[in-house]
Amino acid sequence: MSIRLSSPEQYDALIDKYDTWMFDCDGVLWHGDRLIDGAIDMLHILRSRKKTILFVTNNASKSRKSYKGKFDQLGVVASVDEIFGSAYASAVYISSVMKLPKDKKVYVIGMSGIEEELREEGVSFIGGTDPADCTVEPFSLANFTLDPTVGAVLCGLDVHVNYTKISKAFQYLTRNPGCQFLVTNEDSTYPSADGLLPGAGAISAPLRFALDRDPISIGKPATTMLDCIKAKVNFDPKRTIMVGDRLNTDILFGQGGGLSTLLVLTGITSEKDITGPNASSIVPDYVTQSIGDLRAAGSP
Amino acid sequence: MSIRLSSPEQYDALIDKYDTWMFDCDGVLWHGDRLIDGAIDMLHILRSRKKTILFVTNNASKSRKSYKGKFDQLGVVASVDEIFGSAYASAVYISSVMKLPKDKKVYVIGMSGIEEELREEGVSFIGGTDPADCTVEPFSLANFTLDPTVGAVLCGLDVHVNYTKISKAFQYLTRNPGCQFLVTNEDSTYPSADGLLPGAGAISAPLRFALDRDPISIGKPATTMLDCIKAKVNFDPKRTIMVGDRLNTDILFGQGGGLSTLLVLTGITSEKDITGPNASSIVPDYVTQSIGDLRAAGSP
Repeated sequence: MSIRLSSPEQYDALIDKYDTWMFDCDGVLWHGDRLIDGAIDMLHILRSRKKTILFVTNNASKSRKSYKGKFDQLGVVASVDEIFGSAYASAVYISSVMKLPKDKKVYVIGMSGIEEELREEGVSFIGGTDPADCTVEPFSLANFTLDPTVGAVLCGLDVHVNYTKISKAFQYLTRNPGCQFLVTNEDSTYPSADGLLPGAGAISAPLRFALDRDPISIGKPATTMLDCIKAKVNFDPKRTIMVGDRLNTDILFGQGGGLSTLLVLTGITSEKDITGPNASSIVPDYVTQSIGDLRAAGSP
Repeated sequence: MSIRLSSPEQYDALIDKYDTWMFDCDGVLWHGDRLIDGAIDMLHILRSRKKTILFVTNNASKSRKSYKGKFDQLGVVASVDEIFGSAYASAVYISSVMKLPKDKKVYVIGMSGIEEELREEGVSFIGGTDPADCTVEPFSLANFTLDPTVGAVLCGLDVHVNYTKISKAFQYLTRNPGCQFLVTNEDSTYPSADGLLPGAGAISAPLRFALDRDPISIGKPATTMLDCIKAKVNFDPKRTIMVGDRLNTDILFGQGGGLSTLLVLTGITSEKDITGPNASSIVPDYVTQSIGDLRAAGSP
């Protein structure tokens, strides 16, 4: 059973107990462009108590550098090195784990964030924001030339997704031998400023369905993301806590990596998902209403 | 085990045995715009032997009337009453089985064929070929007005599919209480003239994934399509044969309706799918290479 945090002493003890704090962003620190009340003060308290802070997001629409702009815009202090996104982790996976040969490239269904991270890791790609693929015109195989050097398809959230992109990816995955199928993350939805919209998992779903094949997933809850963090940051899992709003991504991710977990109820998960007859089987270590509650602990 | 047809006597006996012949079209009578060799002669033999001929297609991109144009263009004799498409069956299902109230409407992800059939059945709809939805611009909930009268989302093959269409359908299915989720058919791919492309099942996959909900499927192999045929044509299932190229749609459809089944190998299914260690568990009554083989039987 989860511990429900409520007293200042509990929040204070929690902060004492963990040296490294990993935060999901959307639904935890902000909703779209609206900051969650108390998020900035809470981070200020953690920093004043010398905690290591990491931001671990499945958002693949932005590179870490662009995502840093979002922190700046909302007045949240963060450095690029503290930010781990699924676009970055995907690029690292392709270059360092999959070791895609230099003469091969990636076909991207996704936005500029993925392109920036691939470029940074020296991975060649086509598709993505290429205007030729941003079309609602019917796709014709007669006018399509298969690029035999495409060795992977990487699929992330893409608000410009269309039949041409899906059809091209389908061709690479069925006709280029050994072509890998990767997704930045499997979130079924994502919280926009005005409500839920279909997420990266939904964007990749036509390919899963047409191919009857599951992709390799990089973002939370997959451990690939944690491997990527481990390669850059020293932390003791026993003294690390993952804070998130989604049971099947954030909390599962923390549990899979041997971290402690704190669920906040300002995002996707509501009280009915964790209490009563239809409660999820994924049980976080701690629950609090909002990340702003940690302010009760106070600075040292 | 399937009977492999090869001798003129076998083809002659087969034609004798069945009064009603239901044909899938793509992959059986033609590939895209190329007629299968012998298809016209074969149909001529069946007609000269007084058989009832029906064309049962999952293709929802065309209405029956438009689909008749395809028959004409390829020189295949057919009347509109002989053609049953999944767009038509979907419209009949919505008006006659689901009985969508007259003040409600359907949000369509699909092409003009679905719109024509809905119009013919007196069902109101939005979306579909509306230019406002044919866009690769990002979708914003701030600029979206939910139409509370949308009581169903109908999804079919749509080569103009994009994030706006998927997001609007997602809004109706999550925010309009009781909104039904229908698909014309679940084909994962469809055979274009130049090769396989993602099919209607793939188009509906983002919604399935985002909603974690399976739609009601109308086309083959669902029995809804057969119910629709039964309402219009008299036939004895025992003396009816379904001819198709797909095990998991055509052959399953025939078997589900108590019909006999004939598989042709000119489409999706190849020899390795029906023979050897990886053979499908769906076993047709008869197998022949091509529908043109039936010419061996000759006219009466």
